Amino acid sequence: MLRLHHHPMSAPSRFLRLVLTEYGERFELVDERPWERSRELLALNLAGTVPVLVEDKGPPLVGGMIAAEYLDETRGVFHRDRRLLAEKPFERAEIRRLTEWFLGKMEAEVTRYLVRERVFKREMTAAEGGGAPDSSAIRAARTNLKNHIRYIAWLAESRNWLAGPRLSYADLAAAAAMSILDYLGEVHWDEEPVAKEWYMRIKSRPSFRPFLLERVRGIPPAAHYSELDF
Amino acid sequence: MLRLHHHPMSAPSRFLRLVLTEYGERFELVDERPWERSRELLALNLAGTVPVLVEDKGPPLVGGMIAAEYLDETRGVFHRDRRLLAEKPFERAEIRRLTEWFLGKMEAEVTRYLVRERVFKREMTAAEGGGAPDSSAIRAARTNLKNHIRYIAWLAESRNWLAGPRLSYADLAAAAAMSILDYLGEVHWDEEPVAKEWYMRIKSRPSFRPFLLERVRGIPPAAHYSELDF
Repeated sequence: MLRLHHHPMSAPSRFLRLVLTEYGERFELVDERPWERSRELLALNLAGTVPVLVEDKGPPLVGGMIAAEYLDETRGVFHRDRRLLAEKPFERAEIRRLTEWFLGKMEAEVTRYLVRERVFKREMTAAEGGGAPDSSAIRAARTNLKNHIRYIAWLAESRNWLAGPRLSYADLAAAAAMSILDYLGEVHWDEEPVAKEWYMRIKSRPSFRPFLLERVRGIPPAAHYSELDF
Repeated sequence: MLRLHHHPMSAPSRFLRLVLTEYGERFELVDERPWERSRELLALNLAGTVPVLVEDKGPPLVGGMIAAEYLDETRGVFHRDRRLLAEKPFERAEIRRLTEWFLGKMEAEVTRYLVRERVFKREMTAAEGGGAPDSSAIRAARTNLKNHIRYIAWLAESRNWLAGPRLSYADLAAAAAMSILDYLGEVHWDEEPVAKEWYMRIKSRPSFRPFLLERVRGIPPAAHYSELDF
């Protein structure tokens, strides 16, 4: 059995939920509050971060990319036409580059800040770092977000999916981050119609449906968040 | 032909040189000064970082881990007994975890700071960020380094090599970083005899030899740097 330790507002966690669902895998979800640094989570991952994927009694697979490589080797390889990491080395490298871009760079420049300031801080105690949001961090993240959306639009304009002709990890990584930002009303879709068209295609996939039903306590989603045609 | 855009004091660059040499590959080295953000480098990698590996007319492979995955798929797979990424998915995940630890976390907490403050700043113009080293950054990096060396010792004590019974990407990633820090005289080997024994084994490999001969202009290496028995 697969068990995913996650947080609903963590982009790499959502990324792995999309991957697992696209591959038709059943998995248990364990909610974590990473800032509490629980003993259970630290025992799996000394860095105290999510996601962590555990299969049966195997060692913990820490982080989106490492778990995704494992899933490619144990699942993807059997899903020829629907494999989310291509077959050819150069194509695999391009998918990895973009997946790390969205799970790493965009996470560090945009998503992590906005989620921390707007969501986590509401739940954290003062000792854990809670309190009023830091408006300069929010402003910087919003400026960076514009560049990332423009990059998604540029990729979606020149290719069918972000890394090439087929749906891949790159799309799921970008969509995981965008779905969180969209929930928070941070995305001005009308300014980027090409990115919007790509997101509508991803959003209508069955693997995406659970996200559209989830709610964060005290933070209602943007009005169009759950609409497939927005 | 393989071409590696690198800097001699970049840990992920040294990591790829070790990997390529362990696999017996011939490659050209192109020296880059990442802080100059040359048009050639930016054309290969918009982020302006090294390493970038290019094979023939293929797309640039940016960063240590992405290039290493590519080399595993195109080279490693043919080196059964000497493959640097294991065969089994759980073992591959553990090697990746540690490789990312040394190329990512240790790089961000230790190596990048010390190299920037002690090496790059000497070569940078004021506009590029040059000037006197920031002693508080150096102090923080030195404190973090102690923990990373202790972690290497802990791994080397419980296993033959850092990720298991065989030499792997994990050892080469850790050794790449340690060789730079050792050049700069930042490592107090006598405090960590188990880590020292592991490093002596790596240092005596033929793939390591080129590093022991390289010198940074204006910065002589620590007295024991080139000695195999130190």
